[in-house]
Amino acid sequence: MKINNEFAPHVIVVGAGFGGLRAVKALADAPVRVTLIDRNNFHLFQPLLYQVATAGLSADEIAYPVRGILRKQKNMNFLMSEVESIDLPNRKIITQQSILDYDYLILAVGSETNYFNNQSLEQHSFGVKDLREAKTIRNHILTQFEHAQTESDEQRRQAMLTFVIAGGGPTGVEMAGAIAELVKVLGKDYPDLNHDQVQIILLEGIDRLLAHLDPSLSSATIKALARKGVQVRVNTLVKDYDGKIIRLSQDQVLKANTLIWAAGVQAGKLVRGLSDQKLPQNRVKVLPTLQFPDDECVFLIGDAAYLPDQDGQALPMVAPVAMQQADLAVKNLLNMMNNQPLQPFQYKDWGSMATIGRNQAVAQLFGLRLRGWFAWLVWLFVHLMQLVGFRNRLLVLINWAWQYIFYDRAVRLIEKVPCD
Amino acid sequence: MKINNEFAPHVIVVGAGFGGLRAVKALADAPVRVTLIDRNNFHLFQPLLYQVATAGLSADEIAYPVRGILRKQKNMNFLMSEVESIDLPNRKIITQQSILDYDYLILAVGSETNYFNNQSLEQHSFGVKDLREAKTIRNHILTQFEHAQTESDEQRRQAMLTFVIAGGGPTGVEMAGAIAELVKVLGKDYPDLNHDQVQIILLEGIDRLLAHLDPSLSSATIKALARKGVQVRVNTLVKDYDGKIIRLSQDQVLKANTLIWAAGVQAGKLVRGLSDQKLPQNRVKVLPTLQFPDDECVFLIGDAAYLPDQDGQALPMVAPVAMQQADLAVKNLLNMMNNQPLQPFQYKDWGSMATIGRNQAVAQLFGLRLRGWFAWLVWLFVHLMQLVGFRNRLLVLINWAWQYIFYDRAVRLIEKVPCD
Repeated sequence: MKINNEFAPHVIVVGAGFGGLRAVKALADAPVRVTLIDRNNFHLFQPLLYQVATAGLSADEIAYPVRGILRKQKNMNFLMSEVESIDLPNRKIITQQSILDYDYLILAVGSETNYFNNQSLEQHSFGVKDLREAKTIRNHILTQFEHAQTESDEQRRQAMLTFVIAGGGPTGVEMAGAIAELVKVLGKDYPDLNHDQVQIILLEGIDRLLAHLDPSLSSATIKALARKGVQVRVNTLVKDYDGKIIRLSQDQVLKANTLIWAAGVQAGKLVRGLSDQKLPQNRVKVLPTLQFPDDECVFLIGDAAYLPDQDGQALPMVAPVAMQQADLAVKNLLNMMNNQPLQPFQYKDWGSMATIGRNQAVAQLFGLRLRGWFAWLVWLFVHLMQLVGFRNRLLVLINWAWQYIFYDRAVRLIEKVPCD
Repeated sequence: MKINNEFAPHVIVVGAGFGGLRAVKALADAPVRVTLIDRNNFHLFQPLLYQVATAGLSADEIAYPVRGILRKQKNMNFLMSEVESIDLPNRKIITQQSILDYDYLILAVGSETNYFNNQSLEQHSFGVKDLREAKTIRNHILTQFEHAQTESDEQRRQAMLTFVIAGGGPTGVEMAGAIAELVKVLGKDYPDLNHDQVQIILLEGIDRLLAHLDPSLSSATIKALARKGVQVRVNTLVKDYDGKIIRLSQDQVLKANTLIWAAGVQAGKLVRGLSDQKLPQNRVKVLPTLQFPDDECVFLIGDAAYLPDQDGQALPMVAPVAMQQADLAVKNLLNMMNNQPLQPFQYKDWGSMATIGRNQAVAQLFGLRLRGWFAWLVWLFVHLMQLVGFRNRLLVLINWAWQYIFYDRAVRLIEKVPCD
């Protein structure tokens, strides 16, 4: 029963990430009109963004046009636009170009980098949240090597070849491992450079990496990174960075032209203002039914939603949470329309994993702890299958096979590209 | 015999296009030191640039890192830098970062877009000479469709959906055909748009397309383009363009948000000042030995070099000329070093071809005239084989097969990307 007439209730979904896309698909056969809004015309597979940043994959292999994904869904319109604000009392969405009325709203705006109001970090370090940032990192790392090649001053060259990553979560760990592998490939490109000068340093504020996993996997991760040439410093906080010198806690300093900031995210800007209550990562509290407490027609899902589990811990900001919440939000929305009781969210946690590069990953799945080669294979398979589109899967598989066999990173391009 | 000591003569090659790269490779076993300079760290396969502009290929599939290509060449250094000027009397190359001395110089700077000093065209139309421009066109075309989708004003929507290409040479013809195919794919992405409003118009100043081929192929090209929905207007010149209205010769006007300028190229800026003599396309005259008349140690090859053939016609600005000239320039350079007589350049013209899209190409090879499906297969094979690197060949082949089987254009991304 596909209804696409102007009298059907209008559901607006904001955000074409894992949660938003899943919600739109779940609404395919519902008697509603759906409008999906995103600032980009593509869905981005964020878990592999660090591979674009390290010249392993090209942008279009992890991005897929939204209109291509949802072509067959008759009750859906897509609008490429930045949402500027939400008028909750009047049920309106204000975008750059227009004002849209809704009956129901699903906010799946995701998260963005959190610099904790530190201007120096915001200005000089590199975020890892979108394609633009990933390509900026790729251009920057490769340019450092080009400049180091002709730099005669020993100290300046040292700073060019020092790559610091802040944040020992999955993004930081995967980024550090991938940079180590890129650097190995670059050894062949720059035979005259002294590669002993290259330093890759991973900083973490607390006492272990990947704190969401079992401690035994945390220490396995440190060892695996060390074997790849990554120095890990735990219990170390970044105070500020001027583009040249990183000031750390305990008054240590690091001279580096590169600081990648993977040490914090926060709820997307659009929803941060919706609540007065100050919650971790500026997330916005939702009811167990995923409704916004002040407006039952508004559902909040994914990274931006704050919902504690049985232990009082906020749910992690990961794709599986967003996707499971999308399913329940749509179910509850339809229940509301049919005057049925709503259901509370229950997270089914399959587990978590992170890759440390070639042949190395750690994973905690269904209560099992995996590490090494087998965990890496599982990681490869899971990520490949989650990519949208057969073509993207095929191209990513070819690129990975290529890198594995030839110890290569093919996308070593410093690309001068159009500005907005 | 590989020599890489500081007493060997120093050869600087400017430009890592078809000519420059070929020259560097030809010098691999010569008793010289070679420095290759390019503003980019990659070699760009320009003949397929229009496919990046029309969402068929991604940038990294037609670009290949220079250091990757020349890794095994021991007597070579690569410098990524913009050359600012040449000091011929003192044999110095001045780059953004440094000043380099040379004993011999091979200038292979290629060509750039020629707007014939028309400011309005330079400002508002789109060139097709590098990756940045290709991606700008891709972003622009897709954005026009996004905006047309929500535009209620009939005339404004018409201007958004009118794509004008100026120039009936291979670039213009291939671009027009590729846009026609992209538009067909976009029909599925924007089912609510009236696709009869889409207009693709190819303008040519003289009385036929592909003037370097036999007239029978020119008219076959017009027919093939017409079948794809491209209107061709010959004997039509562009006077100016303000981003909205194209003024043509005979006081005609076209309302269009898109004008792609494929109607002129000229020798690269770096060499244009080297000669006082005003030659077509601002090219610089060379001796039959490819030496610069005022300095025998300087060789000029490729698009920027002006050398008439037996009939007094300047050689075409195409890759085969550049590559054959690279071979002779290196041969003559080594002959000079060994006090041997130099040889004049003789172009072996294998022929020329252009594709009009799916199943359609025209070619003139070894005196044979080909068109249609077979010419298209030859075109595919020749271009695939000329790409650098097995990975790029494989990925381009997969993309082409994908497009052919599924009538798809996979890279339909509007990418917001870092500025320089």
